[in-house]
Amino acid sequence: MTKTSTPATNITWHNSSVSVQARAKQKHQTPMVLWFTGLSGSGKSTIANAVEHQLLAAGAHSYLLDGDNMRHGLNQDLGFSAADREENIRRIGEVANLFVDAGMIVLTAFISPFRADREKVRARVGDAAFIEVFVDTPLAVCEARDPKGLYKKARAGDIPDFTGIDSAYEPPAAPDIHLHTNQADIETCAQQVVSYLDTHGFIRAPKGAN
Amino acid sequence: MTKTSTPATNITWHNSSVSVQARAKQKHQTPMVLWFTGLSGSGKSTIANAVEHQLLAAGAHSYLLDGDNMRHGLNQDLGFSAADREENIRRIGEVANLFVDAGMIVLTAFISPFRADREKVRARVGDAAFIEVFVDTPLAVCEARDPKGLYKKARAGDIPDFTGIDSAYEPPAAPDIHLHTNQADIETCAQQVVSYLDTHGFIRAPKGAN
Repeated sequence: MTKTSTPATNITWHNSSVSVQARAKQKHQTPMVLWFTGLSGSGKSTIANAVEHQLLAAGAHSYLLDGDNMRHGLNQDLGFSAADREENIRRIGEVANLFVDAGMIVLTAFISPFRADREKVRARVGDAAFIEVFVDTPLAVCEARDPKGLYKKARAGDIPDFTGIDSAYEPPAAPDIHLHTNQADIETCAQQVVSYLDTHGFIRAPKGAN
Repeated sequence: MTKTSTPATNITWHNSSVSVQARAKQKHQTPMVLWFTGLSGSGKSTIANAVEHQLLAAGAHSYLLDGDNMRHGLNQDLGFSAADREENIRRIGEVANLFVDAGMIVLTAFISPFRADREKVRARVGDAAFIEVFVDTPLAVCEARDPKGLYKKARAGDIPDFTGIDSAYEPPAAPDIHLHTNQADIETCAQQVVSYLDTHGFIRAPKGAN
């Protein structure tokens, strides 16, 4: 810690910022992004929330960015044009980057269908801190669940460019974590993510999780 | 913690989010925004950085949003038109709101010259969580310091609409914290802010700060 006790009237304008290393040390973790991607209804938000509960129980400091807190806040000025969708992901990536700089583990739960957009975020955050989580649920399963009735509307032509129906979903070529939601329940999927963080040294071994 | 162990193939789409109360409890603090406002060169960033060092020493969890991490990242698409300046502050307020939701103490260091813009952020974050810090340094002192040579350029007409020269600065009518930088050094100003947080129960009594 550099002292900045020079009188303000005769200042050396040295801003000694708290470093990301100091923030990480305080939180006993390696800050990073868990970037969940998958079709609408695949289970991204539900699994990410379960991961957050397990992380909290393990003493880790995390935060989840999802449609609820982004689309109604920072990104409320954006629509669903191609340009706005790209800007939506760009801003999410920038906010995720700020949370990483703050020493946090940040989870994001957005369809984020295009590889190029995800790779831009990876480049921004840094490869080592960007962990891509593919929530791999077949389209037929997502459409059968249809929790918000969006697939029904898309099939009826009421939502244009709906991912999986008339707009492409580009799955990760080599996701860091691959969740097969058809073969495991939510808590098991969440545990798979937390185990990855533990094994790769992002967090200390969780105590009392589950 | 609500259990979400229903098999993913037959899901009840209940997202049980970790609450802001749980995040605050984990961090032993009341999340809030310290919104620094003042002229260019008044000492906002320098004092905010000193506050962060004191908060870290006190075991609090904080993060500073300033020109360095916002203008080159999230807000890199914004210029200096009236509309862009308003959007700049809006986005900063939204990001601050996310950090508050994450349980953090967030400091912001921007000129933010217009009352209306600051009041919009206060309304968004909630009055109790928005603490306005007026870094009160006379224009003549800021201009004499001129750490980035901006006043010189503004006087030469090279920077239009420069706050304090040819664009208004609207000081807070009743700032929560009023820092007179001409009468106290940086560490003393920072201590005044940390004492406010302590006295008002946002943090526990700092140990080992300073």
